[in-house]
Amino acid sequence: MRLSQIGELSLLEQIRKRFEKQSRTIIVGIGDDAAVLKQGDTNLLVTTDMMVEGIHFDLSFTTPFQLGFKLVSVNVSDIYAMGGNPSYLLLSLAMNNYTEKSFIDKFFDGVHKVMNLYGVSLVGGDLSSSKSLMSLSATLIGYTKRHIQRSGARVGDKIYVTGPLGDSACGLMLLKKKIKKPVPLEGYNEREQRAKSTGHRAQNKYTLLHALYSKLSVGGLSWKVVEPLLKRHLMPEARDPKEFVRYATAMIDISDGLLIDLSRLCDESKVGARIHIEKIPVSYELNKAASYLGISPIKLALSGGEDYELLFTAPANKKVKALHIGEITESERVIVDSSGRKKAFSAEGYQHFGVQR
Amino acid sequence: MRLSQIGELSLLEQIRKRFEKQSRTIIVGIGDDAAVLKQGDTNLLVTTDMMVEGIHFDLSFTTPFQLGFKLVSVNVSDIYAMGGNPSYLLLSLAMNNYTEKSFIDKFFDGVHKVMNLYGVSLVGGDLSSSKSLMSLSATLIGYTKRHIQRSGARVGDKIYVTGPLGDSACGLMLLKKKIKKPVPLEGYNEREQRAKSTGHRAQNKYTLLHALYSKLSVGGLSWKVVEPLLKRHLMPEARDPKEFVRYATAMIDISDGLLIDLSRLCDESKVGARIHIEKIPVSYELNKAASYLGISPIKLALSGGEDYELLFTAPANKKVKALHIGEITESERVIVDSSGRKKAFSAEGYQHFGVQR
Repeated sequence: MRLSQIGELSLLEQIRKRFEKQSRTIIVGIGDDAAVLKQGDTNLLVTTDMMVEGIHFDLSFTTPFQLGFKLVSVNVSDIYAMGGNPSYLLLSLAMNNYTEKSFIDKFFDGVHKVMNLYGVSLVGGDLSSSKSLMSLSATLIGYTKRHIQRSGARVGDKIYVTGPLGDSACGLMLLKKKIKKPVPLEGYNEREQRAKSTGHRAQNKYTLLHALYSKLSVGGLSWKVVEPLLKRHLMPEARDPKEFVRYATAMIDISDGLLIDLSRLCDESKVGARIHIEKIPVSYELNKAASYLGISPIKLALSGGEDYELLFTAPANKKVKALHIGEITESERVIVDSSGRKKAFSAEGYQHFGVQR
Repeated sequence: MRLSQIGELSLLEQIRKRFEKQSRTIIVGIGDDAAVLKQGDTNLLVTTDMMVEGIHFDLSFTTPFQLGFKLVSVNVSDIYAMGGNPSYLLLSLAMNNYTEKSFIDKFFDGVHKVMNLYGVSLVGGDLSSSKSLMSLSATLIGYTKRHIQRSGARVGDKIYVTGPLGDSACGLMLLKKKIKKPVPLEGYNEREQRAKSTGHRAQNKYTLLHALYSKLSVGGLSWKVVEPLLKRHLMPEARDPKEFVRYATAMIDISDGLLIDLSRLCDESKVGARIHIEKIPVSYELNKAASYLGISPIKLALSGGEDYELLFTAPANKKVKALHIGEITESERVIVDSSGRKKAFSAEGYQHFGVQR
């Protein structure tokens, strides 16, 4: 039997069963966003995530800076999803002999930028040549006094996400179908952009190149609509849960899509979930771009993937700074539409070694 | 400029300079066998090493079991080289859709076997599909109260290695040029084999397949000569330094060849080295096989690479259980032959993104 006939999740489950907790210093082993290892009065968190050319990224529309930025961000997102603080980074890079030195330099510019953003230090790694496509892997070590697993959700808890969903998947579609070339977003700062859009004075120094792009449009879409979507896909910023982490009962980061990651959280917590379609946060930009592309924004929000927003649960009586999308139930897993109709959902999202459904 | 024109070492040096120690909790950052991170009264060691198809391994003569075994061993070797105890393992695997499920199972059989050998637990990882060759990466976390760096060698220290050199490189040549197919060595146990060759009763259960192979010969070489060489290449066991670690002043594991790794140790310690050609340990099997292949055994021992023996220094007045091969000098770096003639040596060994010399 081939991997394509088994699928990633089933394979992971088998590996997980085979290597169950092997030592009492392992608080959480395989199967959550990061491992939790006992370490005196604090806990060590460790996670690893890879990005493979042709699978996770396409150099025909990704700059090396963006690649370095994203590789670190997706790992930070896993540490945040356990309620931890990211600290130490290791990188393993396999690149072929024809790679330009300037590519590596810009890749490390991106790594450097994003390390500063999260306060992470690079402490080691491995470099190898490759006879084929590029393969990048990062390991991130973090710390936490109290870790949040996927398994802590209780019936009656409210379900939250930290931001709009589907933007990244829509950004990817725009890149693949319309833009088809790398776009420099290096000067773009999400927080400053937001401050700007809420009327505050913008602080970021737009580069000349950026100013040029900002006058462009993609089909009928203005660059102001396109840019945040591309940014969310190419240079996602991980969400720090510090403002609500004390209330969180279970948490996961949305990497494979809301429905698949919510299903994982429910599986681990042995509960169900009810989410309200009109509460799913969909950005203005996603609505605009999805209409232009002729696709359903809500479909992208439910199962687009690579959102890197946090999905978590908290007791209903706590005041939580995040977007409420539903409630934890005993066992039913449903999406409720605006007229109150329920529709069952199951894990839908991206699986490596994809099984036909 | 392309990576092939720069070379791995020069690139590593640039990255190291750019990401110098960024926090006071980082005792050793980029540039040694593992990073050393302050952690209460003990230190955390972290290392990562990758194995890329077509570069580090060739599936036409490597079994998946051997691949899993070696991937963990080479990382354990890095932790041992810092004087530490290996504890937690993470794996990142990119394999294509056509990979057979049985391949993965056997790969994890090898991982399992070698984890037991070193007392290591698998705590996490990442699985991805790949559109091209296989790419494997492991991260290993260990602990030590006292870490041994490459930089501690002092003039007058003796230089030691933990076992014969060149066996792995010779094994690789036999596989590439003569055997050209995978050989099951899974039942082979180095320690038991040694006990056998010293007259003790063998304890290992030779499989039927193994018994069959043991009657074979490769060209004029008996299987008894061939097997330990293949084993050292395909399933290297890392050397635990516990018997001498308290005396070690500097240490490194020999992955790229004695001369290149000794040069690294000397560079970091700002010293020279004198090694005696007749003290370089060359096994009976290497002598036999090298003569059959028409190559110089000493050349393989000096720069063959992938030995995964430890190379270390200790004060001359200490009694050390290892093989003495030379002394640390002020600055000259020479090999002394049996008639006392000196020949300067420099880093020679395997470099990724290889530069022509």
